[in-house]
Amino acid sequence: MTSQGVTPQSEDYARWYTDVVQKADLADYAPVRGCMIIKPYGYELWENIQGALDRRFKATGHKNAYFPLLIPMSFIHKEAEHIEGFAPELAVVTHGGGKELEEPLVVRPTSETMIGHAFAEWIQSYRDLPLLINQWANVVRWEMRPRLFLRTTEFLWQEGHTAHATKEEAQEETMRMLDTYADFAINEAAIPVIKGLKSTQEKFAGADDSYSIEAMMGNKWALQSGTSHNLGQNFSKAFDIKFLDENNDLQYCFTTSWGVSTRMVGGIVMAHGDDKGLRLPPRLAPIQVVVIPIFKTDEQKNLVLETIGGVRESLITAGVRIHVDDREGLTPGFKFNDWEMRGVPLRMEIGPRDVKAATVVLVRRDVSGVEGKQSVQATELVSTVTRLLDEIQANMLAQATAFRDVNLHEAASYDDLKEIVKDGWALIPHCGTPECEDRIKAETKASSRCFPLDLNEEWYPKGVTCSACGKPAQGRAYFARAY
Amino acid sequence: MTSQGVTPQSEDYARWYTDVVQKADLADYAPVRGCMIIKPYGYELWENIQGALDRRFKATGHKNAYFPLLIPMSFIHKEAEHIEGFAPELAVVTHGGGKELEEPLVVRPTSETMIGHAFAEWIQSYRDLPLLINQWANVVRWEMRPRLFLRTTEFLWQEGHTAHATKEEAQEETMRMLDTYADFAINEAAIPVIKGLKSTQEKFAGADDSYSIEAMMGNKWALQSGTSHNLGQNFSKAFDIKFLDENNDLQYCFTTSWGVSTRMVGGIVMAHGDDKGLRLPPRLAPIQVVVIPIFKTDEQKNLVLETIGGVRESLITAGVRIHVDDREGLTPGFKFNDWEMRGVPLRMEIGPRDVKAATVVLVRRDVSGVEGKQSVQATELVSTVTRLLDEIQANMLAQATAFRDVNLHEAASYDDLKEIVKDGWALIPHCGTPECEDRIKAETKASSRCFPLDLNEEWYPKGVTCSACGKPAQGRAYFARAY
Repeated sequence: MTSQGVTPQSEDYARWYTDVVQKADLADYAPVRGCMIIKPYGYELWENIQGALDRRFKATGHKNAYFPLLIPMSFIHKEAEHIEGFAPELAVVTHGGGKELEEPLVVRPTSETMIGHAFAEWIQSYRDLPLLINQWANVVRWEMRPRLFLRTTEFLWQEGHTAHATKEEAQEETMRMLDTYADFAINEAAIPVIKGLKSTQEKFAGADDSYSIEAMMGNKWALQSGTSHNLGQNFSKAFDIKFLDENNDLQYCFTTSWGVSTRMVGGIVMAHGDDKGLRLPPRLAPIQVVVIPIFKTDEQKNLVLETIGGVRESLITAGVRIHVDDREGLTPGFKFNDWEMRGVPLRMEIGPRDVKAATVVLVRRDVSGVEGKQSVQATELVSTVTRLLDEIQANMLAQATAFRDVNLHEAASYDDLKEIVKDGWALIPHCGTPECEDRIKAETKASSRCFPLDLNEEWYPKGVTCSACGKPAQGRAYFARAY
Repeated sequence: MTSQGVTPQSEDYARWYTDVVQKADLADYAPVRGCMIIKPYGYELWENIQGALDRRFKATGHKNAYFPLLIPMSFIHKEAEHIEGFAPELAVVTHGGGKELEEPLVVRPTSETMIGHAFAEWIQSYRDLPLLINQWANVVRWEMRPRLFLRTTEFLWQEGHTAHATKEEAQEETMRMLDTYADFAINEAAIPVIKGLKSTQEKFAGADDSYSIEAMMGNKWALQSGTSHNLGQNFSKAFDIKFLDENNDLQYCFTTSWGVSTRMVGGIVMAHGDDKGLRLPPRLAPIQVVVIPIFKTDEQKNLVLETIGGVRESLITAGVRIHVDDREGLTPGFKFNDWEMRGVPLRMEIGPRDVKAATVVLVRRDVSGVEGKQSVQATELVSTVTRLLDEIQANMLAQATAFRDVNLHEAASYDDLKEIVKDGWALIPHCGTPECEDRIKAETKASSRCFPLDLNEEWYPKGVTCSACGKPAQGRAYFARAY
């Protein structure tokens, strides 16, 4: 146990994760099995994630809407792969208004079916296309092995749903949103995700092709952090989403869907956290700067708090999210640990000597020891803080990228893969068949994460065979332990 | 039918409402009985409502959090009045993950129980108080007579939940949030709501006292548009929400809850709409200014659209929400009607003559005929538009206030009340007993709306008796037909 009561990562990573999520007040388990309560600090992080994504969706022409939580059971059955994939995870409402329902209703596990039904009514002609919709919502998928944020029976997410006139446009949209997710992950969450195509085994139930962004966690496991699906005409045929084209011919639409969930919060915890707790990227941190007043006498206290008042105003004006920890009865040392646990990027200490010298002390969360600490003239405070927040953001991405890169390996053979996936990600030429993936998983606990786009672009697997089974390779795929 | 296919208000107000909601693309019925699909235009209006409320909640120290959708049935039973009130409206999940559940789960109709459970864990001492939490969420209450936005089985809302050390603080919070709602309704939605105390009959199931803001709709019916409840110690006793006070004595907390829902959208439609469709207050309107290009030749079209491009940029820079309707194949007249239907506060027309004269034509949605129309020099466009939007906002509030005031009446007797509530609101000294209200409702279809705060402050009902039953009056109450 560390001083804050957090299990060290090296001792038990899973326990470390749960400790940090609970002690940093992000979330806690709910009295309903598999569900969680997102506490204010965790929810504010989620609000910042929402804001950063929503801006990107709107900038690319998408509009938000809202569709019902409860879906007729018959809808879920309309697309064959879809029901097969989701049947084991459904929560079912059988009674409403004091009576047993004629047809049970499913609490939405995802909304392709309900939105497919709506799109069929909304779309008449090619003039209605593309239709670009997003929904912020809760969904329920029965979860046997729940973990806060990573796997919960109910979670919050956004689900984009679009309809297009051609296959090419649907594919462009699928890739545009994958790129949007990667841009968000890299530039807001400071997580250097890898974009790639999912294998048949790992794709969405009902998609032609699924793509994902895959992130490496601190224990080198993978976290699928966002997905973008080209649904082809599967749902348009199941729900009769048709349009009259320019020649007045009736055609089925091509649809896509894509989602990022509260799972992203877990990803941020595990991509950046250390034994002291969270480390939050400044762009998403609910609090970017925490101020700890330091004093002994009441006179000093008044002096220090007055100075802090001015500092606070000037930083708020500069758009910095700042919090002054003026709690009584707690030592500065306790507060330092507490805010390190909560991952605040920058700590400011102001004591009587600082007031006299017109300086403040700034301490970075991303750099330990004396190197992370500096005294700054009050006159340069605002410019220094904004510069440091940018530096911390960039440094966290650089740290995560360096960590990822030393743990990505090309496996020379299947035996090599077996060794690598004990503590890293292994790239192999891979057949992409479910049977082969089942075997790899059974033997190594690793699953195929994706066929990374940038490593397959210039790579032609002609004549190359799968390292695991010897069948012709579909491309090069990463394998890793995964959440 | 009007030209846009909307039933006139005078012919059938209920039909007018549904026509407008559907034709203005705010929402539509879903394939699940009682549920609705909120379309992008309606959702954007809701997002603006959310933004205006959320700013106010945060400015008064509240923090957002998120609690589970699914609540154990046993929770709902812990507060006696609560289960009695909500039992007939519950949707119940009996199966999850392919199995029948040991204990059924309720889809939350409201979250006092789940949040009460959490508060009991979060609160230890007086230092944890007040605890000020808000949740944005969906809730489900089985609805037998659904109406878009006004009564739907699922609706979106915010629910505030707070805990306090004293009864006085809980009452202060209850009134602060009632005032917050009134401030929002008046200054953002341009609806002159009346704040008041609900009668025993109309209060929330589990509250000591409920307060509401009541709005007058265009047909003079009342719409309860937001509620704020002082829950006393009812839920803290049911869920064991206790704290150690400064003397180290264990005490039950006093709690409050308060909510505004998507019902507010219906209120905006009915408080301001006319036979041409919606009229949206500029502060909440998704589109504040719509620009209609007018041209005949391609040359004129290029000229006009180029000018519009510049106009659009300058208004966006000024923070105006503007949309250019450059749809092909539709006449300007069709577009005028279409955007009147959608309630856009200000229409801008730009044709070749305007371009030559460096003018634009502005047409107000809130003032009919030539009085609402003016030609403006391009150099003064931005200042004129921002001024006009403010004027429209103020004028809509003034119009709604004038309409309300001529339809509020003091009833001299119960017979007088019977006449008044056919087409207005009647104020009477009232006993506040459920039996009396049942009788009034049966005989007049009117229900007690509230004991308005400002009409009861200086009014002492000593010796005054209820106009309807002759029992001692509790105060003066409004009666009206209500949604």
